Amino acid sequence: MRATLIHGSRDIRLEDVPDPQIQLPGDALIRVVASCVCGSDLWPYRGVRPVKEPTRIGHELVGIVEEVGADVRTVKAGDFVIAPFALSDGTCPHCRNGIHTSCVHGQWWGSQDKNGFLVDGGQGEYVRAPMADGTLVATPEVPDDALVPSLLTLSDVMGTGHHAAVSAGVGPGQTVVVVGDGAVGLCGVLAARRLGAERVIAMSRHADRQAVARQFGADVIVAERGDEGVERIKELTGGVGADAVLECVGTKESMAQAIGSTRPGGRIGYVGVPAGGSELPIGKLFSSNISVGGGVAPVRGYIPDLLTDVLSGAIDPGKVFDATFALADVADAYRAMDERTAIKTLLTP
Amino acid sequence: MRATLIHGSRDIRLEDVPDPQIQLPGDALIRVVASCVCGSDLWPYRGVRPVKEPTRIGHELVGIVEEVGADVRTVKAGDFVIAPFALSDGTCPHCRNGIHTSCVHGQWWGSQDKNGFLVDGGQGEYVRAPMADGTLVATPEVPDDALVPSLLTLSDVMGTGHHAAVSAGVGPGQTVVVVGDGAVGLCGVLAARRLGAERVIAMSRHADRQAVARQFGADVIVAERGDEGVERIKELTGGVGADAVLECVGTKESMAQAIGSTRPGGRIGYVGVPAGGSELPIGKLFSSNISVGGGVAPVRGYIPDLLTDVLSGAIDPGKVFDATFALADVADAYRAMDERTAIKTLLTP
Repeated sequence: MRATLIHGSRDIRLEDVPDPQIQLPGDALIRVVASCVCGSDLWPYRGVRPVKEPTRIGHELVGIVEEVGADVRTVKAGDFVIAPFALSDGTCPHCRNGIHTSCVHGQWWGSQDKNGFLVDGGQGEYVRAPMADGTLVATPEVPDDALVPSLLTLSDVMGTGHHAAVSAGVGPGQTVVVVGDGAVGLCGVLAARRLGAERVIAMSRHADRQAVARQFGADVIVAERGDEGVERIKELTGGVGADAVLECVGTKESMAQAIGSTRPGGRIGYVGVPAGGSELPIGKLFSSNISVGGGVAPVRGYIPDLLTDVLSGAIDPGKVFDATFALADVADAYRAMDERTAIKTLLTP
Repeated sequence: MRATLIHGSRDIRLEDVPDPQIQLPGDALIRVVASCVCGSDLWPYRGVRPVKEPTRIGHELVGIVEEVGADVRTVKAGDFVIAPFALSDGTCPHCRNGIHTSCVHGQWWGSQDKNGFLVDGGQGEYVRAPMADGTLVATPEVPDDALVPSLLTLSDVMGTGHHAAVSAGVGPGQTVVVVGDGAVGLCGVLAARRLGAERVIAMSRHADRQAVARQFGADVIVAERGDEGVERIKELTGGVGADAVLECVGTKESMAQAIGSTRPGGRIGYVGVPAGGSELPIGKLFSSNISVGGGVAPVRGYIPDLLTDVLSGAIDPGKVFDATFALADVADAYRAMDERTAIKTLLTP
């Protein structure tokens, strides 16, 4: 089969690799229907996280189950499944607590599992999915093609935006600010609206992203950043600040923006992977009773609820995909994300 | 009247000062029935926070209203009142959000108010209380002397321990760890139990404090600290960690203890004033989805609920007072706290 490997900075190649096979009784073999490029894939692409050797890449995918191992009970050949970005057993104490990303048997797409077998990357034609029962969620029936983009977001960005909103305690009547206009931030707008926020303020300076934010329910767009951005949020909230702020970037500047935008007693939900700003200013948080929660999103646990809303048409997070590439053009899909000519790129094998 | 002033490190004096009088229509004049020494009073006492000039001190008090200004509506002469450690108007957006410590007109005992009038310190015979309607809570009737210590804790330490528990999201079925065995930590044990925690683990290495922790509902005492303390918590929780951790100290070491004791997805409620460890390690919090909330406790909002439980006998937080001094011996009350021969000292004028 063909699969994507990253060889180094800005060196993405689609290559012929061995077809995956069932290796363990808990495995499922999946034919990928759609995958995509994640903002976090850009770290090795940009050389921020150096690539030591050619490595399979991609961790968001939906597909059709081709075959399952002897122990698999919850999915079967022919099922359409959503595969979250982290593999989990679904039975350990952390999974039972809903924190599948801390699974004691947790694994990651594109790496070796603990038995020494490769777990394929998502940006390919097929993947072997270990711990299929814990990891995969099947849809009730094979969905229409039109639903595929939205279903694909449940593997990462929609669940991650939702995690930011849940971690910030978003609920009815609240004013919510979303810092970050990438696919996750935009999904955060949608999630905040879905959870009943009264007013959603999206911070964005790009017309295309502002448009999606509006479609997802943002009432106000704030283009200012830094101190000016904080001042604008204060103006919009009668000098008080927002009840909840979703930090969907992960830089020191974006966290400062989030803290400055939160009212005393308010909550920040953060899902931007911490880069650069590796600490939080506890003195400021203490004096204003601002709480900070979130982290690497345990999206597996959120899929069933969000799936219901995608299938009913209540939410359409697939709008974050504004460009589609054939797998053969995967390098272009990376380039479009890197150069910001696309918000998020979808790949079809 | 007589009131306590701090002149410098370890220099506490009871002095004759002018009798306070009603200065503003929102004032109340209170005869202090009991006050006490706070752990935070030990900062200037120990020279950690230098004293520039002789200053009134003390911020926890209960007493009888002697007189009120023309605009005061919620308390009257003869009422027994609880005065929280922060004065607030009760009407600004932050007060309405329950964060009275961020009141836009907020004031502090022992300082000048915005009109230039002295707000007396709590460790004296009388105080002028500005913003009486927003700040003070009257009991339904003048309580028995036996209830006074518990009522006095509602001015600070019980409300602060409760804030730690609320900020950590303590609820039924949870395992809760309390870091810190001062009066606030002990009240945190009581608050966690009151909020329905299934199992409360108190970290303490002092027999007298362990005994109070047990009386307040701690199931297990852990005397180990640092890595050993974390290891012990892990052992006690099947390797998982606690659902909620109350950080009631405020040092870098105690926060590390708290973070190490929290399970993935768990919550830390912190009320220890940050000293030394002024930042939080966001990378560790992110990877484990540990949230951190809390801060300077808005105790005013908690008084009505906690008061109900004190008056009914459901809780008896006054047990944190293990020594009583006459106001004339206030310097001894400080020394007992400083030398840790007492957990918390009560003062009677």
